[in-house]
Amino acid sequence: MYKDPAAPVAARVEHLLSLMTLEEKVAQMLCLWQTKPKIQTPDGEFDPVKASESCPHGMGMIARPSDRQLGGAAQVAGNSGTIVNRTASETARYVNAAQKWAMEKTRLGIPMLMHEEALHGYVARGATSFPQAIGLASSFDPELVEAVFSVAALEMRAAGTQLALAPVVDVARDPRWGRIEETFGEDPHLSTEIGKAAVLGLQGRGLPLANGKVLATLKHMTGHGQPESGTNIGPAQVSERVLREAFFPPFKRIIEETGVGAIMPSYNEIDGQPSHASVWLLRDILRKEWGYQGLTVSDYFGNRELITRHRLAADNREAAIRALLAGVDVETPDPETYKELPALVREGAVPEALIDEAVRRVLSFKFEAGLFENPYVEEAAADALFATPASIALSRRAATRSAVLLKNDGVLPLEAKKIKRLLVLGTHAVDTPIGGYSDIPTHVVSVLDGLRAEGKQAGFEVDYAVGVGITKERIWGQDAVNFIDPEVNRQHIREAVERAKHADHIVMVLGDNEQTSREAWADAHLGDRDSLELMGEQNELAAAIFALKKPTVVFLLNGRPLSINFLDAQANAIVEGWYLGQETGHAAADLLFGRANPGGKLPVSIPRSVGQLPVFYNHKPSARRGYLAGSVKPLYPFGYGLSYTKFEISEPVLAKASIGVNDSVAVSVTVKNVGSRAGDEVVQLYVRDDFASVTRPVKELKHFKRIHLQPGESQQVSFTLKPADLAFYNVAMKWVVEPGTFTIYAGPDSEQLKSAVLTVQG
Amino acid sequence: MYKDPAAPVAARVEHLLSLMTLEEKVAQMLCLWQTKPKIQTPDGEFDPVKASESCPHGMGMIARPSDRQLGGAAQVAGNSGTIVNRTASETARYVNAAQKWAMEKTRLGIPMLMHEEALHGYVARGATSFPQAIGLASSFDPELVEAVFSVAALEMRAAGTQLALAPVVDVARDPRWGRIEETFGEDPHLSTEIGKAAVLGLQGRGLPLANGKVLATLKHMTGHGQPESGTNIGPAQVSERVLREAFFPPFKRIIEETGVGAIMPSYNEIDGQPSHASVWLLRDILRKEWGYQGLTVSDYFGNRELITRHRLAADNREAAIRALLAGVDVETPDPETYKELPALVREGAVPEALIDEAVRRVLSFKFEAGLFENPYVEEAAADALFATPASIALSRRAATRSAVLLKNDGVLPLEAKKIKRLLVLGTHAVDTPIGGYSDIPTHVVSVLDGLRAEGKQAGFEVDYAVGVGITKERIWGQDAVNFIDPEVNRQHIREAVERAKHADHIVMVLGDNEQTSREAWADAHLGDRDSLELMGEQNELAAAIFALKKPTVVFLLNGRPLSINFLDAQANAIVEGWYLGQETGHAAADLLFGRANPGGKLPVSIPRSVGQLPVFYNHKPSARRGYLAGSVKPLYPFGYGLSYTKFEISEPVLAKASIGVNDSVAVSVTVKNVGSRAGDEVVQLYVRDDFASVTRPVKELKHFKRIHLQPGESQQVSFTLKPADLAFYNVAMKWVVEPGTFTIYAGPDSEQLKSAVLTVQG
Repeated sequence: MYKDPAAPVAARVEHLLSLMTLEEKVAQMLCLWQTKPKIQTPDGEFDPVKASESCPHGMGMIARPSDRQLGGAAQVAGNSGTIVNRTASETARYVNAAQKWAMEKTRLGIPMLMHEEALHGYVARGATSFPQAIGLASSFDPELVEAVFSVAALEMRAAGTQLALAPVVDVARDPRWGRIEETFGEDPHLSTEIGKAAVLGLQGRGLPLANGKVLATLKHMTGHGQPESGTNIGPAQVSERVLREAFFPPFKRIIEETGVGAIMPSYNEIDGQPSHASVWLLRDILRKEWGYQGLTVSDYFGNRELITRHRLAADNREAAIRALLAGVDVETPDPETYKELPALVREGAVPEALIDEAVRRVLSFKFEAGLFENPYVEEAAADALFATPASIALSRRAATRSAVLLKNDGVLPLEAKKIKRLLVLGTHAVDTPIGGYSDIPTHVVSVLDGLRAEGKQAGFEVDYAVGVGITKERIWGQDAVNFIDPEVNRQHIREAVERAKHADHIVMVLGDNEQTSREAWADAHLGDRDSLELMGEQNELAAAIFALKKPTVVFLLNGRPLSINFLDAQANAIVEGWYLGQETGHAAADLLFGRANPGGKLPVSIPRSVGQLPVFYNHKPSARRGYLAGSVKPLYPFGYGLSYTKFEISEPVLAKASIGVNDSVAVSVTVKNVGSRAGDEVVQLYVRDDFASVTRPVKELKHFKRIHLQPGESQQVSFTLKPADLAFYNVAMKWVVEPGTFTIYAGPDSEQLKSAVLTVQG
Repeated sequence: MYKDPAAPVAARVEHLLSLMTLEEKVAQMLCLWQTKPKIQTPDGEFDPVKASESCPHGMGMIARPSDRQLGGAAQVAGNSGTIVNRTASETARYVNAAQKWAMEKTRLGIPMLMHEEALHGYVARGATSFPQAIGLASSFDPELVEAVFSVAALEMRAAGTQLALAPVVDVARDPRWGRIEETFGEDPHLSTEIGKAAVLGLQGRGLPLANGKVLATLKHMTGHGQPESGTNIGPAQVSERVLREAFFPPFKRIIEETGVGAIMPSYNEIDGQPSHASVWLLRDILRKEWGYQGLTVSDYFGNRELITRHRLAADNREAAIRALLAGVDVETPDPETYKELPALVREGAVPEALIDEAVRRVLSFKFEAGLFENPYVEEAAADALFATPASIALSRRAATRSAVLLKNDGVLPLEAKKIKRLLVLGTHAVDTPIGGYSDIPTHVVSVLDGLRAEGKQAGFEVDYAVGVGITKERIWGQDAVNFIDPEVNRQHIREAVERAKHADHIVMVLGDNEQTSREAWADAHLGDRDSLELMGEQNELAAAIFALKKPTVVFLLNGRPLSINFLDAQANAIVEGWYLGQETGHAAADLLFGRANPGGKLPVSIPRSVGQLPVFYNHKPSARRGYLAGSVKPLYPFGYGLSYTKFEISEPVLAKASIGVNDSVAVSVTVKNVGSRAGDEVVQLYVRDDFASVTRPVKELKHFKRIHLQPGESQQVSFTLKPADLAFYNVAMKWVVEPGTFTIYAGPDSEQLKSAVLTVQG
């Protein structure tokens, strides 16, 4: 009966479960990745004979089928960065072979789930590369983000994957943390809206999964974005209410509003409890309080780290017990602790009912994904579905909408007819980074390529000098980070200065790369920093160039907020690009020459220095008293971003000055483009509860809308303030709206705000 | 009956309470400080007629009777720093006049409590000034600390005070915070032991209060030492278990072990609840869970800040309700919110029973202090009890025991006979700071005075040049901080270099002062910093002097840990003095010339930079993964400090390798002085629970002992590891010892450790 597509999923699950041995059940909770060679030929093809020997009870999941991990001497040693990925059709062929084995050579014919990474496009060879997550958040454009993740889903599904380990909805409060680029920034509301758009893009609306859709994974639950001292996987030093106010909302709301398929617990501990072992987090909150029905998948080696990192369990058996009791359904990426489960059940150390519960969710997932009916993909069609012209055009559009204009004295947009010779500087201009969690796209348009094309078309010369290098390699997966010798850079700087004498305009491409800001996934693989200054000799180059007093634009490509005080003081213009994906160079040209008018806003405060941390905008009123001989204000505030045109935003107008605690009220704001160019503004609505029974943030973003206006055009933007926008967790941890006054703020960022007062009556 | 000294205190309290009107009760919950002019003559003497007019129902407390606050035009405007304090006998006279009014001119004759500050000696004109609190903690010498606070108590009591607002037992985890100097550092155990010694010194052992003793106040409960972003009164971002593990222990244990008289809630919020309004903190934990019977006194304006800072209450009435419900017994320093209490009781907004409960504790306190029997002091005797020769000698001894030797290439101790001309540099050498919460001692021996005396006696010349100044003034209470013009300093540096050419040895006195690191008590009165670098041109002076390659010792006087990477790399020796009190100069000479051998240890990690924060040593195993191009290790670790001799510390030897969960075990360590001088070592014992059901710190200090050894002498130091040293709060928040292995570490600091394994059996 479980093979009958007409039967209800729940019934199919129960029937199948009733047929399964304990070993077959546990096999559904396992995954293969670094251990893939044991199911493959030495050259990395799927080998059904070896698979049947290695996995006689079937297998739940394969991690990254697109990785070509080789057997024998070349057997992989962890995240070595030497893995070569398969093309779309190669992956499809591999997946088909694997599924054929699962369907035909295992006793019950249970297909496998294939999972892949997709933070900013599907991480696979030749797939479309989009702007990094923090850039996508900068767009303040959920529709765009949904479109981007729809492309990723389509490509993944074409290659045979049904589960994406994305998006990251960690609220990020520490820019020292190298993973901040993977997040949607510091604001719970923005992270929710952008994260929700990503989930809808991946997963679509409702189950079973539609064609071209994959199940999404919200990660990492939770507190991962505020690691102690800024070092990856450090404890999240937060209390329960802060969790509920700041870190839970993206998870809670996206679960409620999308039915997201999977949740990944975070590596870090909160209050002494690592998420992978936290009954409170994964059962009491996630399942009981929020009613979450989906799957939980461990983060890679998250179960193992209960032993090696957290010292919570002395061996695999103890770790398996803790993770299972907490509610981790599937161990990824390889069978380590959960392979102990059959023995543990037989010894009575864990009840089989907990295994059944987890397996039900895995099977459910597979039925919902349609895998029992159609586990195969069309190998021949796969390649053509990757990086289509439309997808690449979307990547370019996403890039132009993600960039944030931080400073502009009028030099931007550049006017081609005024340029004779444009000098482009910086290793980034040629060796253009696209951020962590990237594979090799079909092509990355470098900044220099983009500007050279511009020059060719518009008739100005484009010159290039390295100016400054950062690291010798730019390999995310490589442990060692080898910096360019400062003396080599100083020679580059001297050459750049010489070359600059012959130029009339300069574009300097600076920032970080995939080695200097990245996931510190091991003690030997670091990526967090104790400083937010530009690394190496970048400021030296900048100083030498600024001294020439030529119009100089800084184009930043980087993953973490950088304390660019010096650039801010001296550059004529600064564009924060984050990482812009495979169309970086074209997008840069679009932006610098005004075909695209920057409209992105910062999803994270940019600090003046590491000494200000944390510097998030939505702090409590008792925070940020001030520093002696310093400032508690960031260099650029949350929500900030300029345009080539100018906007006026009115004060917010409330439809009613006074409402009841269960009422909603409309708020409208009039926005006018008072400049001379068409452009985008992001209207932002913040709320403050003026006095409340527990302390409330000085302001919190509750609504935003990105609009496009022609010169002189006005638009009224309306929002509905709902009780949920005014509510908070009171002393008894109840979600309430309290009577009293609320200040409603509107403006173009989190600081330049106009306000109105709303009275809520009891 | 309440006047009968033979009656039990509880009966006296109940009888007196039964006679009191509501207004008289509430008056006992009030205090006067900035409003003192309303009970004084215009020239600051106590005026019983005005007092009866202003306070017809009596008054509970007077804050800082030693402050001469003037009436009329000179009326004080907050913490203006312009207050002149009275001498001991003047204070005694004032107190006697006030008590005479209370005893004779109020209806029930209830004496008043007088409270004063006493962080490192009584904060009063002419009282003995001791090393700042963080220095006292550096002594790792509870006996010394008890003696120091005994002197403070004696002086306070001589001047008519019965309540000291000390000690500060905040565990301090952020050196940006200007109040870190007021604490005993980052370790819960050290803070407990030193804090307990302070309480015993102030309060003695047992009630009623003995002669020369005052009631102590533990402050600030809690989380105050880890303010968000390092700015004073910022939210403490901590979870419940971290509170219990790190921040509660000094409060809990000192309450249990001393019967301390008073607790002061902290300004900050935890989990959205400011301590002054936290029922959970002040009732559930403090009173119900810990059984605390003593008084709670608000921090200055702590009730008001529920309105102005935390926005928890819209007005004085709401603030009064919140504070009373939470269990704040007395509002300090002036009647603001609690003056609303009679009306609130009459309206039924708060039950009178809560008033009674608070008043009972105030009255109890007064009976225990013997005030009803003897509210007066001997005016004529007071002056002679201040700063006695014995007290000053103790201050010098405390100073030599507080200093920490951070580096020594052998230049120290200086040998007088090898010196012809010693150059002393730095404004601190002459204008020697003694830290916040100081008044004007009878005399502060500057570093230069101390070294000149040494030179005169030993026959070498002592020269001085400013070298570098820091601030134009050195007035703790002054809001504005005016830095020395860098060009002025550069001229000083040039002069210093010239002068240095004629010297053979150099002592450079650098650091912070009472303006650059201090309590940021208002938005306009700042003292927290976003950097831990030496301020101003101090490193420039150091660089210029080091370049001369003459033997150069840096003597630091400062309140916050400083990232002295450059000094560490280049100085021949560095002494961390913190602030050493009124005998600074003599103590410096004792230390530099080897009469005293440094034996102090760091009570707080000294970071390499602000980018490492937090950097406390007792972190969880998942913290401190590492920084790219940086280090997670502090510059100097917790517990670190050198000596002029050398010690060998053996591995710890356990009396039994295996014990039960309820057992204790002896641990002994052999220490040998293998150098050629007598000296002190602080043996430190740390514990790690190797695997536990919640994550445990990588190590925690559990015992320490400072011992003195002659050259060649050995000593076996024994400690008893008790269940409390092995226990922790499990998932259910129960305090348990879990079976398993524990690593027991011993050594001279928190990093150079030898270990043994203890097995605990279930």
